[in-house]
Amino acid sequence: MHQSIKNIKEYLDIFDEDDLNNAIRDLTITEILDQWDEFTKEEMVRLFTHVDQEFKVGLISEIPTQDQETILIELSASGINNVLSDMEPDDLVDLIQQISPDVRQSVWDSLPNEVKEETEFLLKFDEDDAAGLMTPRYAAIRKDITVSQAINFIRKRVEKVETIYYLYVVDEFKKLVGVISLKEILTSEDNVTIDTIMERHVLSAREDTDQEHVVKIMEDHDLLALPVINRYNKLLGIITIDDAIDVMREEQTEDVYKMGAMSGDTDSYLESGIFKLILKRIPWLIILLLAGTASTNVIAAFSDVTSMAFVILFMGVITQTGGNCGTQSSTLMIRGLATGEIHFRDFFKIIRKELLVGSLIGLVTGIIIILRSFLLPPGGILIQEALTIGLSLNFVVIFATIIGASIPLTLHKIGLDPTVAAGPLMSTVIDVCGYAIYFTTIRLVLF
Amino acid sequence: MHQSIKNIKEYLDIFDEDDLNNAIRDLTITEILDQWDEFTKEEMVRLFTHVDQEFKVGLISEIPTQDQETILIELSASGINNVLSDMEPDDLVDLIQQISPDVRQSVWDSLPNEVKEETEFLLKFDEDDAAGLMTPRYAAIRKDITVSQAINFIRKRVEKVETIYYLYVVDEFKKLVGVISLKEILTSEDNVTIDTIMERHVLSAREDTDQEHVVKIMEDHDLLALPVINRYNKLLGIITIDDAIDVMREEQTEDVYKMGAMSGDTDSYLESGIFKLILKRIPWLIILLLAGTASTNVIAAFSDVTSMAFVILFMGVITQTGGNCGTQSSTLMIRGLATGEIHFRDFFKIIRKELLVGSLIGLVTGIIIILRSFLLPPGGILIQEALTIGLSLNFVVIFATIIGASIPLTLHKIGLDPTVAAGPLMSTVIDVCGYAIYFTTIRLVLF
Repeated sequence: MHQSIKNIKEYLDIFDEDDLNNAIRDLTITEILDQWDEFTKEEMVRLFTHVDQEFKVGLISEIPTQDQETILIELSASGINNVLSDMEPDDLVDLIQQISPDVRQSVWDSLPNEVKEETEFLLKFDEDDAAGLMTPRYAAIRKDITVSQAINFIRKRVEKVETIYYLYVVDEFKKLVGVISLKEILTSEDNVTIDTIMERHVLSAREDTDQEHVVKIMEDHDLLALPVINRYNKLLGIITIDDAIDVMREEQTEDVYKMGAMSGDTDSYLESGIFKLILKRIPWLIILLLAGTASTNVIAAFSDVTSMAFVILFMGVITQTGGNCGTQSSTLMIRGLATGEIHFRDFFKIIRKELLVGSLIGLVTGIIIILRSFLLPPGGILIQEALTIGLSLNFVVIFATIIGASIPLTLHKIGLDPTVAAGPLMSTVIDVCGYAIYFTTIRLVLF
Repeated sequence: MHQSIKNIKEYLDIFDEDDLNNAIRDLTITEILDQWDEFTKEEMVRLFTHVDQEFKVGLISEIPTQDQETILIELSASGINNVLSDMEPDDLVDLIQQISPDVRQSVWDSLPNEVKEETEFLLKFDEDDAAGLMTPRYAAIRKDITVSQAINFIRKRVEKVETIYYLYVVDEFKKLVGVISLKEILTSEDNVTIDTIMERHVLSAREDTDQEHVVKIMEDHDLLALPVINRYNKLLGIITIDDAIDVMREEQTEDVYKMGAMSGDTDSYLESGIFKLILKRIPWLIILLLAGTASTNVIAAFSDVTSMAFVILFMGVITQTGGNCGTQSSTLMIRGLATGEIHFRDFFKIIRKELLVGSLIGLVTGIIIILRSFLLPPGGILIQEALTIGLSLNFVVIFATIIGASIPLTLHKIGLDPTVAAGPLMSTVIDVCGYAIYFTTIRLVLF
């Protein structure tokens, strides 16, 4: 299409106004975001004031909170007014919730009353529920109008709603009674009434439906928007697909953090202060550290076994391999539970499968460690010692696959988040039990 | 809205045809998918034949491959024809690529020629590229028509295209010269020509653009569809948002698997055979096992230190804590690199931050392990021993944060996938180095 600008920064620093305007016109938001954190505050503001209105609205929703603040502080009250009034109400609510209190006040004062009311309505809802994602700017019609009246209505309302691609049919109490897509309307005859062509079985979310479930419904049914209703079936707003995608990204980040043994809050790494990062990390580290010290008791209980030099040599690699194998199993379960592919009712089927997989993997890794102990330094391992090491690795690996699969399934069954049973917890548990298995095997075989 | 059916299976087994039809009418695809793997093959087929056409098309794209086959085998040739012809061409291509060769032939034979041609066109492209996601059913117009002509065109074409929400403007060589949203058309005067209102700067993907980049562009710009062009700017097809969402889910699963030290292929767990699962898991296990055996050499090299009983007691918990801490750092980096928040140019800023975080975490965990070694069994630890253990844990944790942050950043910089540096690799590296740091600290302080 167009030659992308390799370094926007250079344009911002040296070009004159006209050249800058020309250069910016060809940029995409993706290109700007890619280079965003190289800009100084002055450059951010300069760039922002030079892009056109629609672009401003798209850009401000995507940049980090502190940069939103920088730009809002620099804009005049009327400038704020223009940009923020054009934002989707749900994005605006997110922005207002995130910015610091002093900036918030001046932003709030500059908003027109209509936008304030809308925002106040949305601020009542929990941000993790369906209602926290919705916009009140939907297109609603009555069921007794005709197709041509509906088309006229859309053409007049188009600027005031977030999507025109679904029309929601409501009764006199604003109860949701049907839905019709613009596609459907456009293919129908002009004088047909909406009543006869609308879909009466409307997929919807309740105001307190969990946002993850909202995403699932929209994904399974390939919907571009989903209506949100209260318990009396009254239409409150709609959730559009762009917001569902943001939720997907956020949930994904949360899951990855939890799998890395951290709290799931999705604040930016670069923006977070040292103490915030420590607070995110230290609770799990301490829990795992204290749990992990149980290994000192296990090792102490087998002091007869650990007095043999070769036993100590392989302590680390045996429990490490067990931990890796358990991590694999728990990762498969956690992901399967998250995508809805795996259910607790498959428990025994899964355990049988893991037992088989674990036995074969245990055999292979057992043989490898036996060969390794003969062929490479430090050496000096007797044949019966090597065989015992291989055998115990085999046991540890089988144990690890079973534990790795059953802990996440059980946590999920009793209503806890299976994600905590990811790598770090798994390897701590397997470390402690792995030592016991390793030492017991040696005691039984060699003593 | 409606009372959801707790157990669809019961309905499938006992109800008569009329009751079943009534019961099914109120089901959503999400509800059916939730209970899908409880159904027998007969029940799947019975359910499938009773839902209406639109529902069939939605459902068949979402169920596992082997169940798609089961249903396709049961359907008559004309039944196959009906369902598959109504599927989006890109979903159809995915289905045809996945089913087993014998079913594929009979499915292929039953397709109408028009669908065959479309499918053959799409099969030419790599499924991981932009072109592998696209549908050729887009709405294209010429720039010299008026708004009212465009509306008429849409109303006639609506059944033949996947989305009517963007119209792509092409010249006589099918080169993409502009785009206009249906929203824009509906707000314009009837006799205005498209030329004067279309957007000339069209966001697009090249046929070989990576699918992850496609998702990024659509996400950043809140697009419902993105056109795909070849190197001569000729319009080949469009990618719709539902397919972009599927890619997001798939990439997410790939990333999670890789972080759990497995190959990233996203085949279903329950459907995969034992040997496929082993193949997915064993390469990384063997690599990590062989790397991990380096710890035997480290331990052997410090036999003077490990001859002291207290040293062995804490070997496990010290390296484990280091591994957990390194996993946290690498998880933060991997996620930040994936979302585009973190870049290599922030290397020193990040390392400084991790050094500070690591020092404080090291201090806290060091104090905890000193207290733990005094207060709880096995006990018998001397004060200078406990202090040395705490000090070495502190060193290991600081080392772990630095390594955990720098390895993913460096891998990404040199063009490798940073995801491999997740938990399992990290804890293996830190195990080996952690022993060395632990033993060296003891040797320096106590000898």
